[in-house]
Amino acid sequence: MKLLKELINKKGEVIGDSIIKVDSFLNHQIDPVLMFEMGREFKERFEHLSINKVLTIEASGIAIGTAAAYHLGVPLVFAKKSTPSTMNAFYTSKVHSFTKNKDYDICISKDYINSGDRILIVDDFLAMGAAVLGLHDIIQQGDAELVGVGIAIEKGFQKGSQILRDKGIHVESLAIIQSFQDGKVNFAKK
Amino acid sequence: MKLLKELINKKGEVIGDSIIKVDSFLNHQIDPVLMFEMGREFKERFEHLSINKVLTIEASGIAIGTAAAYHLGVPLVFAKKSTPSTMNAFYTSKVHSFTKNKDYDICISKDYINSGDRILIVDDFLAMGAAVLGLHDIIQQGDAELVGVGIAIEKGFQKGSQILRDKGIHVESLAIIQSFQDGKVNFAKK
Repeated sequence: MKLLKELINKKGEVIGDSIIKVDSFLNHQIDPVLMFEMGREFKERFEHLSINKVLTIEASGIAIGTAAAYHLGVPLVFAKKSTPSTMNAFYTSKVHSFTKNKDYDICISKDYINSGDRILIVDDFLAMGAAVLGLHDIIQQGDAELVGVGIAIEKGFQKGSQILRDKGIHVESLAIIQSFQDGKVNFAKK
Repeated sequence: MKLLKELINKKGEVIGDSIIKVDSFLNHQIDPVLMFEMGREFKERFEHLSINKVLTIEASGIAIGTAAAYHLGVPLVFAKKSTPSTMNAFYTSKVHSFTKNKDYDICISKDYINSGDRILIVDDFLAMGAAVLGLHDIIQQGDAELVGVGIAIEKGFQKGSQILRDKGIHVESLAIIQSFQDGKVNFAKK
């Protein structure tokens, strides 16, 4: 997606050989027009799949998830990283954070994953795929179906995308980073 | 705001005499059309104030904050409840959670609060006003100006609104709950 790649080139900060900081428009300060346009792009790529729910994880998936859900005309559900006192019955799964090198639990109320749901997962980054696998686990616990995964920035040099595709999961990424070179980003041709 | 009040009446669950659970459309499952319309309403109420940034706290403020920022044509910044490894210099403030009866720290990178910023705070709930006061503290640390606070649901029977108004802060709430009675919600006339 052209707008996203332009913003990555213009405002992303490459740190070392595997991190890109996009705090200025994607996950601390947020460019709402970019969110809206990414949501529209996900609609175009996924609307033929009869999706009835978008799923993400707090916090940085919420903005892009809201935009995708708006365009698809369906609700967004976001997994929480702590259990609210008012939540009774919930599904839970363990997610490993490679950035922070620790596990954390995600949870979703049983009220919001239903048998027969056709779910699109949306997230800001795809690296090792851990967050998506945790959400997929919860979707299966709820007897629902994962019909696609929409990602803003995929780190194409990490394994997540291949792991998901090997499971038969349909992944669409709006920008795929192939490598970093001298502080610049090389995008995959696709 | 009519749409929000209708959803509170239809889908909100009153728990005890001070809690309303709005998990099904506001802060776990999210109704993106409601978010979009609330964002439009905040634009109408605040656009004359030359706002250049919307500010909220993760996680449940992000959806409504994104919508408000979209309509106002400005970026959204959300305060984090933990410090990311890639964040260098940041402002921080302590917020007391009355629901969980504990303090937590919020932080915002110094890059995203600038001297002269005219900031609108947006959040899903206003009860005791602790989150807004924490954000206000950070705005002052950054030598910026708080020009208004936009709230989805105000608990009019708690002190937050009065505390903020006593400090001269302009607060607009889209639904003000006056009291709960037999599991039903009484809204303030305003």
